[in-house]
Amino acid sequence: MSSATQLPQSDLDRYRRELFEFLEIPSVSARSEFRDATRTAGAWVVDALAAAGLEARLVETAGHPIALGEWRGAGPEAPTLLVYGHYDVQPPDPLELWTSPPFAPTVRDGRIYARGAADDKGQLFLHLKALERLLGNGGTLPVNVVVLAEGEEEVGSTNLRPFLESHREQLAAEAVIISDSVMFGAGQPSLLFSLRGLAYFELRVRATGTDLHSGTYGGTVPNAAVVLARILSTLHDSDERVAIEGFYDGVREWDEETRRAIRELPSREESLLRETGARGLTGERGYSPLERLWIRPTCEVNGILSGYVKEGAKTVIPAEAMAKISFRLVPDQDPEEVARLLRAHVTQVTPPEVETEVVELHSGRPWRARPEGPYFEAAHHALRNAFGREPVLAGEGGSIPIVADFEDLLGAQVILLGFALPGANVHAPDEWFPFDHLEKGILTLLDFYSSL
Amino acid sequence: MSSATQLPQSDLDRYRRELFEFLEIPSVSARSEFRDATRTAGAWVVDALAAAGLEARLVETAGHPIALGEWRGAGPEAPTLLVYGHYDVQPPDPLELWTSPPFAPTVRDGRIYARGAADDKGQLFLHLKALERLLGNGGTLPVNVVVLAEGEEEVGSTNLRPFLESHREQLAAEAVIISDSVMFGAGQPSLLFSLRGLAYFELRVRATGTDLHSGTYGGTVPNAAVVLARILSTLHDSDERVAIEGFYDGVREWDEETRRAIRELPSREESLLRETGARGLTGERGYSPLERLWIRPTCEVNGILSGYVKEGAKTVIPAEAMAKISFRLVPDQDPEEVARLLRAHVTQVTPPEVETEVVELHSGRPWRARPEGPYFEAAHHALRNAFGREPVLAGEGGSIPIVADFEDLLGAQVILLGFALPGANVHAPDEWFPFDHLEKGILTLLDFYSSL
Repeated sequence: MSSATQLPQSDLDRYRRELFEFLEIPSVSARSEFRDATRTAGAWVVDALAAAGLEARLVETAGHPIALGEWRGAGPEAPTLLVYGHYDVQPPDPLELWTSPPFAPTVRDGRIYARGAADDKGQLFLHLKALERLLGNGGTLPVNVVVLAEGEEEVGSTNLRPFLESHREQLAAEAVIISDSVMFGAGQPSLLFSLRGLAYFELRVRATGTDLHSGTYGGTVPNAAVVLARILSTLHDSDERVAIEGFYDGVREWDEETRRAIRELPSREESLLRETGARGLTGERGYSPLERLWIRPTCEVNGILSGYVKEGAKTVIPAEAMAKISFRLVPDQDPEEVARLLRAHVTQVTPPEVETEVVELHSGRPWRARPEGPYFEAAHHALRNAFGREPVLAGEGGSIPIVADFEDLLGAQVILLGFALPGANVHAPDEWFPFDHLEKGILTLLDFYSSL
Repeated sequence: MSSATQLPQSDLDRYRRELFEFLEIPSVSARSEFRDATRTAGAWVVDALAAAGLEARLVETAGHPIALGEWRGAGPEAPTLLVYGHYDVQPPDPLELWTSPPFAPTVRDGRIYARGAADDKGQLFLHLKALERLLGNGGTLPVNVVVLAEGEEEVGSTNLRPFLESHREQLAAEAVIISDSVMFGAGQPSLLFSLRGLAYFELRVRATGTDLHSGTYGGTVPNAAVVLARILSTLHDSDERVAIEGFYDGVREWDEETRRAIRELPSREESLLRETGARGLTGERGYSPLERLWIRPTCEVNGILSGYVKEGAKTVIPAEAMAKISFRLVPDQDPEEVARLLRAHVTQVTPPEVETEVVELHSGRPWRARPEGPYFEAAHHALRNAFGREPVLAGEGGSIPIVADFEDLLGAQVILLGFALPGANVHAPDEWFPFDHLEKGILTLLDFYSSL
């Protein structure tokens, strides 16, 4: 096989139409009202896999189904490559901050705007179309290909791990390739050397039996909102380090080579300010922004709700308060250990007159790459050819919890080959994917397969 | 005139029907979707005033209208008594915690349950019916009577003060009588010696331009929810005193007589625990629960909203966060000064990388009674006759901001004669009013007028 440098315009036009159709399906896995839509998106993937020449089916799970496609034409002796992606998306809230509706994809200024454009429908789509070009008309490849697209990545991949465990032999692969991350920058391709893990909790405070009048009772009873704020204020110290005892015990220090490679990369400071709209950066003292993003753990409050939050003034003392709290973890931190430490911390700072509860919602282990071997080299080579620039090694602050499972359960090397760009607004309003990466991404994958 | 000891059952049955009709109108002044209903409640009061023999009309304001009734039959030389109440109610949220719907009044265990049953429709109703008995069939009184019921008490009486200012002569009165508070306890009538004032704010934090992915950006940008929690945690010190510099400067110490009178009252500790469902009481160190309720100021967080607060896990760094913060004030604290102090405090504790804003939503000055004179004596006497027990002097932790205005603008003595009971759940789900106080309240008012 030889690598092309561009795709026919008629194909690109069709890809755009098909991708938009995929993005229009509101497959929000976290919310029960979108359950049918999530399934529809899974079925859409199955149809696209079948059109690409794979044997495809929707596999039921206890939650949202898995779209599975297999092409075994390379024969039982040939190696197998597993392509992983997900067809579910984050909730689109707050809706009012979207310039165009989240499930009405549109192209503006060279970007495709839609929920899921980058995370991960748009990137999964690249694989579907690359395989369609390679296998769709009876073509062949030197490797067997399995495509696995789940519908629960945004809610913790709850049912994927049991599926991997029970299908170890069927899914056995030498390598897993995943496009669900960003390149280091526009025009600067990259391969990932790490992912952070995640531990996500809901903290609940109950102070009184019911909301109370702040005049009639104010000055005598505990206030759930006040207690919650105080607990949250103990999560960091004045150096913005996580102030939970033992939290850093599991953090493995990175080798000097990786830290030097990070220091040699162009500064992300200005682009971070531009992408986020922050007036200033902040974070753990003693580390650069890229280090804080890639190789240091964090603690964030993702949401708080208590009392009266609508229009106007209501003079209540809130009975209850809730916060969503999550941690990004780095090797070798363990989400279960973090849960134990958080519980101990909350117990210690809870005043005797209120009740608190910590509920685990979601978790994933951190991951560190093996940046070597033929699959890694093929990916590196393909990125250089498609983007005309040497790829760099980069970290990723986000989490793909299933990555560690792929390595453990299938014994596969994982290659993280992302095509979104920094500032893609994944998990935020106005999520986007660069329109020209539709072509460049497919070309990269075609080149990748051609060098295997 | 002589005082009766009970009312005919047929009248009580009719009063119950009429009160329920009044309570069924969802006159939530804070919410624009209830604007028409709020007006309907005002018109209902006008009809009731006309039925009671007063000249009545709905007076337009820039907001919800004022229901005004006048009876000038005592002649221009006779003194005038002004009856004040309000026909608007607090929002009923959280709806799911009501045993029966807030606008479907029902009697259970001797209590009328409905939003507004105690605050203040139920108590205003007592005055309407007492006047109907006295004036309805061409009866007369030795004093002229003006009834003023507003529809904006729960949103700060914004348009009432300008109305009082522009109608000083028409509304001139020797005394203002208000039933919008609670008695000290069941079977223990009381007259109020104080009201706390109120200063209510919304604190807004903006950290970034949009919600951000906590993996992609976590560790580099400020988190609005975290910053808000930290700011809120600075509002109190470890003695539960308000930790805003200068906050206590305006607090006038109470005389030893009042403090001794408070100490001699039965303890509220057990009843507070029972009413509120709290596991323990808390509040400013060095003061008893009744002192903390009546003669000490407070700071409460009434609501917090930031980031993702629905079902499941969403890994965002919130761009914005909001808290409703209010203070109960005591003489001689000034809400405007408290606003200035809060702004200075928030500015001081706001980190440079975020923006904060303090918006004033609602305020009212604290008040201290003159517990003497013929109107006070008449009320004292009437309570003793109707309830068979000597009334006590009590404080009130809540606020009726217009009280200070009545004194200043009309030169009137204000008498606060409440008939609700502690634990009435005003501003909370399952608000109630004792059913037998429908009769006892009207009997008290009939006795009050008979001794003028």
